[in-house]
Amino acid sequence: MNNDNWLDTVKWTADGLVPAIAQEEGTGRVLMVAWMNRDALRETALTHRGVYWSRSRSKLWRKGEESGNVQAIREIRLDCDNDVILLQIEQIGGIACHTGRASCFYQRLDADGWHSIDPVLKDPGEMYASS
Amino acid sequence: MNNDNWLDTVKWTADGLVPAIAQEEGTGRVLMVAWMNRDALRETALTHRGVYWSRSRSKLWRKGEESGNVQAIREIRLDCDNDVILLQIEQIGGIACHTGRASCFYQRLDADGWHSIDPVLKDPGEMYASS
Repeated sequence: MNNDNWLDTVKWTADGLVPAIAQEEGTGRVLMVAWMNRDALRETALTHRGVYWSRSRSKLWRKGEESGNVQAIREIRLDCDNDVILLQIEQIGGIACHTGRASCFYQRLDADGWHSIDPVLKDPGEMYASS
Repeated sequence: MNNDNWLDTVKWTADGLVPAIAQEEGTGRVLMVAWMNRDALRETALTHRGVYWSRSRSKLWRKGEESGNVQAIREIRLDCDNDVILLQIEQIGGIACHTGRASCFYQRLDADGWHSIDPVLKDPGEMYASS
């Protein structure tokens, strides 16, 4: 990218953020939704790795920096209102969710409420070693 | 659903909203993201039709009420933080976007910026007849 004009197209929230959907290339599975600020989106586009803004920690969150589950970015799209990002990614390690599941969307609404229906593939304790 | 307890599981924003991703069943294509309030999510679950909250018009928006492009809901999921909904839908008419495109995510980031790469399938003027 020659300049940052493309970042001005994005309609950022009052907090300077935009939601980003990470979709697994090939399977089409929606893995997670997280927030990006301007720096996160720029770095994602330049490095082709998923970088988000952690609202809880108020810092850039290079996905996989602790868990090793980095995201290789294949495509970046923007919606008609310029306020949602859609990423096509390869999820290294096959686990996007901090619970150790492939996708964050593991709760399904059934007739009697929400049910966790997807398996935990890896113990979160193994993913996030205490430091 | 016997009661509304399942709606209390959702972590609503301060404005009482939750973002909902509509994904096309079968193709896996992400079609749009819109907001739901409690009434919209309840009605979506009970009627199996996509109902959202229009922030611009401040009223329930029964998707397709003007355009005819209603959404049949196949599955409703919730993410690990309980703050994003993922819908598996059948998009009647094959057009989810108000621009007349299949998906709202028709802008792709290329080396020189955003480009609209998906075709307009129907003239928006035909979709929204003046009243």
